[in-house]
Amino acid sequence: MDITTPYLLFIGDAIHAKTAQGVRDWRPELCVGQMRFPTSKLDLKLPEMSFDDALAAGAKAVLIGAAPAGGALPESWIAPLIEAMEKGLDLASGLHTRLNEQAALVAAAARLGRTMFDVRHPTETFSIGAYAFRPGKRLLTVGTDCAVGKMYTALSIEKEMLERGWSADFRATGQTGILIAGRGVSVDAVVSDFVSAAAAALSPEAAPDHWDVIEGQGAIFHPAYGGVTLGLVHGSQPDAMVLCHEPTRSVLTDFELYGRRTLEDCIRVYTEMARLTNPDARVTGISLNTSKMAEADALAVIAETGQRLGLPCVDPFRTGVGPLVDALAA
Amino acid sequence: MDITTPYLLFIGDAIHAKTAQGVRDWRPELCVGQMRFPTSKLDLKLPEMSFDDALAAGAKAVLIGAAPAGGALPESWIAPLIEAMEKGLDLASGLHTRLNEQAALVAAAARLGRTMFDVRHPTETFSIGAYAFRPGKRLLTVGTDCAVGKMYTALSIEKEMLERGWSADFRATGQTGILIAGRGVSVDAVVSDFVSAAAAALSPEAAPDHWDVIEGQGAIFHPAYGGVTLGLVHGSQPDAMVLCHEPTRSVLTDFELYGRRTLEDCIRVYTEMARLTNPDARVTGISLNTSKMAEADALAVIAETGQRLGLPCVDPFRTGVGPLVDALAA
Repeated sequence: MDITTPYLLFIGDAIHAKTAQGVRDWRPELCVGQMRFPTSKLDLKLPEMSFDDALAAGAKAVLIGAAPAGGALPESWIAPLIEAMEKGLDLASGLHTRLNEQAALVAAAARLGRTMFDVRHPTETFSIGAYAFRPGKRLLTVGTDCAVGKMYTALSIEKEMLERGWSADFRATGQTGILIAGRGVSVDAVVSDFVSAAAAALSPEAAPDHWDVIEGQGAIFHPAYGGVTLGLVHGSQPDAMVLCHEPTRSVLTDFELYGRRTLEDCIRVYTEMARLTNPDARVTGISLNTSKMAEADALAVIAETGQRLGLPCVDPFRTGVGPLVDALAA
Repeated sequence: MDITTPYLLFIGDAIHAKTAQGVRDWRPELCVGQMRFPTSKLDLKLPEMSFDDALAAGAKAVLIGAAPAGGALPESWIAPLIEAMEKGLDLASGLHTRLNEQAALVAAAARLGRTMFDVRHPTETFSIGAYAFRPGKRLLTVGTDCAVGKMYTALSIEKEMLERGWSADFRATGQTGILIAGRGVSVDAVVSDFVSAAAAALSPEAAPDHWDVIEGQGAIFHPAYGGVTLGLVHGSQPDAMVLCHEPTRSVLTDFELYGRRTLEDCIRVYTEMARLTNPDARVTGISLNTSKMAEADALAVIAETGQRLGLPCVDPFRTGVGPLVDALAA
């Protein structure tokens, strides 16, 4: 799916707006303004706009980039979303609740000829080929856990590559990434048989010096999501993997019964698994999310980790990802 | 889903009837008879029956256990299937085409209050817990490839256990297995995020001496299906794994670009992966499908493989699975 852009970011009276914040941070050129309810406690620091203002500023779609309390689409959001469609705007949503299952929205979209993009729910089908090796270069971010910075690292690497004049595309595999990129596949919502095929479709054959920078999901040593991760590793045929890690946690996020594996274990297993579909696959660097650490401690752990593993090690936020991209150029 | 049984096996004018044959072989007590078109070239060697005959013999459902030419449901099958529902029979199907998407069948089922079971398309939802370790014992069949005997081996082990008076349940993960067991989950059709959760739901907490014998899917060194396999390994928390293999192939079925991995590689990786959720997991035996080999060659390869790996090795069809179950008792 190619999502209609640019966006007016709609956050209503949401309590979190991680998706809207991600799109604003990584694709400010796609965000013309924000619309909030008067009771909103969030602020994206974008111009406040009505739908007419947004249209005048070039908006083509309303992005629902916020998590309402309870997770479902609040009744109070329906009327403004219908009004947006009446004004000529499409809708794009990363919510678990599908816009395309809300009768009032479905009827309005049909009547007005508008498109509603539920990016968490893939509508494409994927065909399983014989998995010939694809030209072009691919980097996949992998992790020791969920929520360790795989999307942030991939976006940082794409940005660095583009700034160096390389040919590169961020390839999104989760809802926030898809809304940032304007396309992608929410792989954890694909039928399990087709995860590898979806990853292959997402990073197709390309010019020999082109890099697809693919957003990873889950972790191979994760009791619930390891299978999604392995399918993504196999289908991506990565030349390079960057291992993402959060150094202050000892157990998996939301799965506290499970301890984290060492970076060494993860490097060994990701490498062996990836070599099934790309015999040259290797882990080329480490990306640490040290946001919970003091600066001195963070820099020490970054230096120590890189030295111990013999790999470039960064925190994209603190140090940038230059050393990771240097390693690919070498 | 608990499927209505016993079945009248309907094969129409199908060209293959692997599912019907599997149900007939493993659950003859669930098969009251067969219905074929006069042009059928297949014969399940069961009594030929009309719907009235089948009802009189106790049938409660028609099992569509055959693959029509082209894979889709032929137009000529619709009228007899509606007639079956009019007579009072439910329908059960392992076809890729959903009965529940055929307008004429859907209307008839609604009018008559019948149920149509599309076992390849799960309708349940699964909740992701924190994956505490479950009491009870679990055996999972795993493979070097698809189509190497994982279902056959699991059913053979369940049968052997029951004959020894053990408490055991075959747990089905594919369409033929589900129609044999009368329940199960087609894990390759589950949304990828929930494969481990589905495997966990399929083999729940049980008495300490109860064995769930879980049908494996795919292979961990498979470029398309490795993720499904890993999700099943993690969610099953297996105490024991039996590695299934077909000794005469050197490349993967339908994926000829990929060579088979050695049994040693597979044992090492399945064991490491399974120990994430069950620290005591191990491969306890080997099951070879030697159907393409002469008897003397087959027995030689069975003996040599077992000796080389230091594990009981069988072909369920030629030697039975006694040694595999002996190893679990020890």
